[in-house]
Amino acid sequence: MNKGRLEAFSDGVIAVIITIMVLDLKVPHGADLAALRPVLPVFLSYALSFLYVGIYWSNHHHMLQACHKVNGRILWANLHLLFWMSLIPVVTGWMGENYRAAIPVALYGSVMFLSGIAYLILGRALIALHGADSPLAVALGRDFKGKVSLLLYAIAVAVSFVDAWLALAIYAAVALMWIAPDPRIEKRISA
Amino acid sequence: MNKGRLEAFSDGVIAVIITIMVLDLKVPHGADLAALRPVLPVFLSYALSFLYVGIYWSNHHHMLQACHKVNGRILWANLHLLFWMSLIPVVTGWMGENYRAAIPVALYGSVMFLSGIAYLILGRALIALHGADSPLAVALGRDFKGKVSLLLYAIAVAVSFVDAWLALAIYAAVALMWIAPDPRIEKRISA
Amino acid sequence: MNKGRLEAFSDGVIAVIITIMVLDLKVPHGADLAALRPVLPVFLSYALSFLYVGIYWSNHHHMLQACHKVNGRILWANLHLLFWMSLIPVVTGWMGENYRAAIPVALYGSVMFLSGIAYLILGRALIALHGADSPLAVALGRDFKGKVSLLLYAIAVAVSFVDAWLALAIYAAVALMWIAPDPRIEKRISA
Amino acid sequence: MNKGRLEAFSDGVIAVIITIMVLDLKVPHGADLAALRPVLPVFLSYALSFLYVGIYWSNHHHMLQACHKVNGRILWANLHLLFWMSLIPVVTGWMGENYRAAIPVALYGSVMFLSGIAYLILGRALIALHGADSPLAVALGRDFKGKVSLLLYAIAVAVSFVDAWLALAIYAAVALMWIAPDPRIEKRISA
Repeated sequence: MNKGRLEAFSDGVIAVIITIMVLDLKVPHGADLAALRPVLPVFLSYALSFLYVGIYWSNHHHMLQACHKVNGRILWANLHLLFWMSLIPVVTGWMGENYRAAIPVALYGSVMFLSGIAYLILGRALIALHGADSPLAVALGRDFKGKVSLLLYAIAVAVSFVDAWLALAIYAAVALMWIAPDPRIEKRISA
Repeated sequence: MNKGRLEAFSDGVIAVIITIMVLDLKVPHGADLAALRPVLPVFLSYALSFLYVGIYWSNHHHMLQACHKVNGRILWANLHLLFWMSLIPVVTGWMGENYRAAIPVALYGSVMFLSGIAYLILGRALIALHGADSPLAVALGRDFKGKVSLLLYAIAVAVSFVDAWLALAIYAAVALMWIAPDPRIEKRISA
Repeated sequence: MNKGRLEAFSDGVIAVIITIMVLDLKVPHGADLAALRPVLPVFLSYALSFLYVGIYWSNHHHMLQACHKVNGRILWANLHLLFWMSLIPVVTGWMGENYRAAIPVALYGSVMFLSGIAYLILGRALIALHGADSPLAVALGRDFKGKVSLLLYAIAVAVSFVDAWLALAIYAAVALMWIAPDPRIEKRISA
Repeated sequence: MNKGRLEAFSDGVIAVIITIMVLDLKVPHGADLAALRPVLPVFLSYALSFLYVGIYWSNHHHMLQACHKVNGRILWANLHLLFWMSLIPVVTGWMGENYRAAIPVALYGSVMFLSGIAYLILGRALIALHGADSPLAVALGRDFKGKVSLLLYAIAVAVSFVDAWLALAIYAAVALMWIAPDPRIEKRISA
C-alpha cells in the first residue's frame, strides 16, 4: 500500500484545521482600535496554534518522507493523530477567550499532550513496519525532543491551575523549541 | 480515464467533512468545568462520526487501490456517496444536542444507512467496470460486513423510537466492527 | 506549464465549496419532526446545488483530461470560474430560505448563468492553447449543451419574477440534463 | 526533499482561505433588493480579496514551478506566508462592514503588506537554495513589481487615515497590476 493518499488526506485535514481556526477571530463590531483590543488574546492564541499545527505538518512531512509504505495500522494511527489535532481549533478559541482561567488553559495543554502521544504512536507504527534498523528508526532514535515536549505539556497542565500565565509561557517555549525542522531526520536523509 | 483526480477530490471533500464537524463543538461560555458538561454529548457524537468518516475514508482508500480506472458512472456513484456523507456533520450536530430524542437519533442512522447503500452502489459500479473476476470483485466477495452494517443501521433506526440509548449502542458497535481495515482486500492485494 | 497544480487547486476549492454549503443546513432547535419541516426547502436547495457543483467538477475533470498544458490566461479563466462558483453557497442558502421569492430565485440563476459563461470562457482559452483541430476542440464542438443551459438560466431568471416555482423547475431540468458525463468528450478520448 | 507536498499543502490552505471568505457574505434576512444593499460592500471586499488570493496562488505556482527542491527554511518561510494570508478573510470581513473607517482599511493594507514581505522572504529562501545564478534567481531579478506593491501598501495604510476611499483605490490598483502572470518567470521558463 503506498503512502501517497495518506499524505494527501493528512494534508487536506491539516490544511482545513489550520484555516478554520481563523473563524474564531470574529470580525469585531465597531471600527476603532478599541474594537480590536478583545481580539488580541484570541489572535495570539491563534498564532500559537498556527505554529503548533505548522510544526506537526512539518514533522509529519519529514517523518513520512523517510518512509516508503503504509499499512492498516498506520492509517488508523494517523487518523488518531488527526482526531486530536482536529480539536485544536476548539481549545484555541476557548483559551483565547479565557486565557487567565485554569480549565481552558489546562484543556489546551491536554489536547497538545494527546496529540503528542498520538504522534509518538504513529512513529512507532511506522518503525514497526520499516524495521528497527531502517533509516527512519535510526533517524528518530530515542525521540528525546518528543518526550521532553510531552513532559512539558504535562507540567503545563498542572501549572495552569496555579498560574495560567506560566502555563502559557511553557506552551510558547515548546513551540519555539520545535520550529527548527527535526535535524535528526534531515541529517540522515541527506547523509 | 484515470482514478487520480477522483481520489484527490474525494480526499478533499472527506477532509473538509471530517473537519467542519468540529465547528459544532461550540466554544462554551464560561471557563469552568460546568461549562464543559453540555459539550460532552456533542463531543462523543463528534468522536463517533469522526470514526465513521475515518472508516469510510480508509475503506474508500482500500477499494480504489484495487482499481485502475474509472468511468462516468463511477464518478456519479462517488458523488452520490459524498452527498450522503456530507450530511454527517448536520445529523451529528443535531444528535449531539438531542441524544435522547427519537427523531435525531433515527435521522443519524438513516444518513448512515444511505451512505452505506451509496458505498455498495459505488462498489458495484467499480466491479462492473473491472469485471466479475477482477481482483477487486474477488476481494469484495459477497460483502458480508457491509450488508450486516446496513441491517444494523435499519434496526437501530427502528429501535431509536423505543430506546435511543440502545440505538446509540448499535451505532458504536458497527463503528467498532469496522475499525480494522478490510482484511478481504488487504489479503488479496498482498497475495 | 503543466496542469497538475491547476487541477489540484480546483479540486481543493470545489471540495470546500461543495462541503461548506452544508453549514447552511442549520441544526434545528427542537427534536421532533416539526423542527425538520423548515429545513426541507434548505435541504432541497442544498441537494440541487450539490448536483450543480458535482456537474461542474465532473465536466471540469473531463475537459482538463483532454488537455496537456496550461498558460497564464487559463489560470485566470479558471480562477474566474471558481469565483462565480464560490458564490453558489451564498445564493443556495438565501434561496433555500426564500424559495418563493423572486429576487433570491433570480439571483441563484444569475450566479449559475455567470458560472456557465466562465466555463465557456475557460473552454475557449483551452482551445486557443491546444489549437482548433486538437482532440479537445473537436470534442467540445459547438458546445450545444452549454449554450442551451445558458439560455435556460436566462429564461429562468426572467421567469422567476412571474412564477418562482417554474424557475426552480427549470433549474432542476438543467441539472438533470447534465448528469450524464459529456459523451462528446468521453467518446473522442476513448476513440 | 521534494517540493510536491509543499505545493499540495499550500494549495489546500489557499483553497480553504479563498473559500471560507465567502462565509462572511451572510445570507441577508428578507427577500427583496433592499436586503441585498448592505451586502454590496462586503461583496466587493470579497471580490478584491479573491483577486489577491488568486494572484498569490498564481505567483506561488509560477515561482515553485521554477524550483526543484525545498528545505526546512523554505517550509517555514512558506508557513509564514500562509499565516499572514490566513488573516485575509478576517480583515476582508471587517473592512467589508466598515469600508469608510480608517482602522479596518489600514489593517487590510497591513495584512497585505505583511503577506508581501513574507512572499519576498520565501523568494529569497528559494534563491538561497537554488543559487544566485539559477533560472529562478535570474527570472525573479530585482523583483521590481513586488517592491512597488509593498511601497503602495505602505502608502495606502497611511492614506487610509486621511481618505479611506483613496486607500481602497490603491488596493484595487495593485491587484489590477498583478493580474497578468509574472512575465519575468514565464519568459525564462519558456526560453
